[in-house]
Amino acid sequence: MKQAIGLEEIYAPIEKKLARISEAIFDVLSTPNELARDVIRHFFSRQGKYLRPALTLFGASIENDEFRAEPEKLVRLAAAFEVFHSATLIHDDIIDSAYIRRSIPTVNAQWNSQVAVLVGDYLHDKAIGAIFSVENPRVISLFLKTAGIVCDGEIQELHEKNNFNLKPEQYFEIIGKKTASLIACSIESGGILAGLPPEKVAALKRFGWAFGMAFQIVDDCLDFAGEQHEFGKTLGADCEAGVLTLPLIRLIELVDEPTKSEVFKIFKSGSEEFSRLKDLLTEYGALDYAVAEARNFVEKARLELSIFPETWVRRNLSRLLDYVIERNR
Amino acid sequence: MKQAIGLEEIYAPIEKKLARISEAIFDVLSTPNELARDVIRHFFSRQGKYLRPALTLFGASIENDEFRAEPEKLVRLAAAFEVFHSATLIHDDIIDSAYIRRSIPTVNAQWNSQVAVLVGDYLHDKAIGAIFSVENPRVISLFLKTAGIVCDGEIQELHEKNNFNLKPEQYFEIIGKKTASLIACSIESGGILAGLPPEKVAALKRFGWAFGMAFQIVDDCLDFAGEQHEFGKTLGADCEAGVLTLPLIRLIELVDEPTKSEVFKIFKSGSEEFSRLKDLLTEYGALDYAVAEARNFVEKARLELSIFPETWVRRNLSRLLDYVIERNR
Repeated sequence: MKQAIGLEEIYAPIEKKLARISEAIFDVLSTPNELARDVIRHFFSRQGKYLRPALTLFGASIENDEFRAEPEKLVRLAAAFEVFHSATLIHDDIIDSAYIRRSIPTVNAQWNSQVAVLVGDYLHDKAIGAIFSVENPRVISLFLKTAGIVCDGEIQELHEKNNFNLKPEQYFEIIGKKTASLIACSIESGGILAGLPPEKVAALKRFGWAFGMAFQIVDDCLDFAGEQHEFGKTLGADCEAGVLTLPLIRLIELVDEPTKSEVFKIFKSGSEEFSRLKDLLTEYGALDYAVAEARNFVEKARLELSIFPETWVRRNLSRLLDYVIERNR
Repeated sequence: MKQAIGLEEIYAPIEKKLARISEAIFDVLSTPNELARDVIRHFFSRQGKYLRPALTLFGASIENDEFRAEPEKLVRLAAAFEVFHSATLIHDDIIDSAYIRRSIPTVNAQWNSQVAVLVGDYLHDKAIGAIFSVENPRVISLFLKTAGIVCDGEIQELHEKNNFNLKPEQYFEIIGKKTASLIACSIESGGILAGLPPEKVAALKRFGWAFGMAFQIVDDCLDFAGEQHEFGKTLGADCEAGVLTLPLIRLIELVDEPTKSEVFKIFKSGSEEFSRLKDLLTEYGALDYAVAEARNFVEKARLELSIFPETWVRRNLSRLLDYVIERNR
């Protein structure tokens, strides 16, 4: 069996800049406000994958393994994407009534949803402020447009909660807006800041978008198939929140009416008969189907890399695509 | 008795531009997203006072009763302040579990708090996008800074909920951040867009800040003393939400220990013995004290107008100061 590649190894070409992200995040979020400080310290006590900042840094160095952008601004921009992403996570956890994230209590669980609303808003504002301070009008304009799209996707997801007739196309539209658009924006912004020509910036955007699609599909599969202690979230959380994701959408398309009713019952009743749902997803190949879709997106993303010279960064972006499929958290 | 001046009359010098605000708001918020559209239509079905857009327009015309700024941009900027303010109201109503605003159900009451979180985020993003599209770096930078301050003030307010030892100074700090800063930003931005010299822009900012302080203090008094059908919000909502405002803070400073316990009990128990609390506030002059503080701020604000020529706009800004004290909703 192929050994799964670790993120650390993949991030090697950008490790020095990436090591500065945590400090930059706390810089962007520094506040004399006690409550806000406590919440920020709690939330960032467990580091995420830093996928979005990493992509910004990759985008800014893919051309020749060197960072062409002004280092301070680049690090701040990369950090801002993580802060913005964190703001959406904090609000998502309210929406989904989630109580575990990165193996620690969510802000709404540790404090309450009021605190989560306001601290999410605070992170949101600070992220935009940081991106503005990079003083690149194209990046600012792209980012503001993307923020609107992300929010639009989340409202659509909320609107389609418990819709048992959701089609794969609608699911793709939702995750395209809520996840892929921000990931695309992260790497595209790195390319813009590095002054890449338009066709290469466009390739980065398409890479990021397809990568983001694959990432979200696998994430949604892990909600069914992952190991609780590795995933760091509550398994079956999407079901509990009423969110239908690709494996389930596929299963519903495949099963007969009585099984559909059974699936519906398990979906609505919460996690008690969750293992039966996992069995059905495996039996009908619904998880395999979803992973195959993710692979399609990964290969689309890989094609976009061909426009770039064969740099270390390009090689590792290609390995990041493999990681997305093979990861278990 | 002096006849209360109506807002319509005060807004006369800016009425043509102000009449375009509603359309501009719907422009900024146009979306194919059904749920978002329904919520937006509901929320804006009752027009607010349009205080912030009005102040932007006043700021842009105080010098000679004419608008010096590019009309499209000015109207969009003014509308953006209303959209941003609306986003904070939608989130505030979650925080305070309020169910009535402008005499109709709040978004969290009509839908749920999840919808309110996301639609609030959506308005927030769109407001920032609209302000960005005005392409004035000073205005953008001022606005982003202000957004952070507003949020900081709200987190502080949340942190001090049910704190019976809150001092007037802390209350002033909180309302300065959550209310006065945005009102100051609205009028200051109008002045910036109109190209006023720095000392006049600074005077507008101080005017707006003092005006905002008075406005919030009176708003907080109306929560105790207003008429439900005129106020359009639930009376006593601040108490129910655990928010201590100036009249109550003053009362607590004045009463003996047994009465303090009684006040505490009414405050915690909700609206049942609310009329007793109103009696105490009147008896101890706590409402009069708060209104006197509001008057102080109003007079501070009025002084700031002296730097401007005696225009129609200036006269009406002065009348707006009287309105703030005399209003009953």
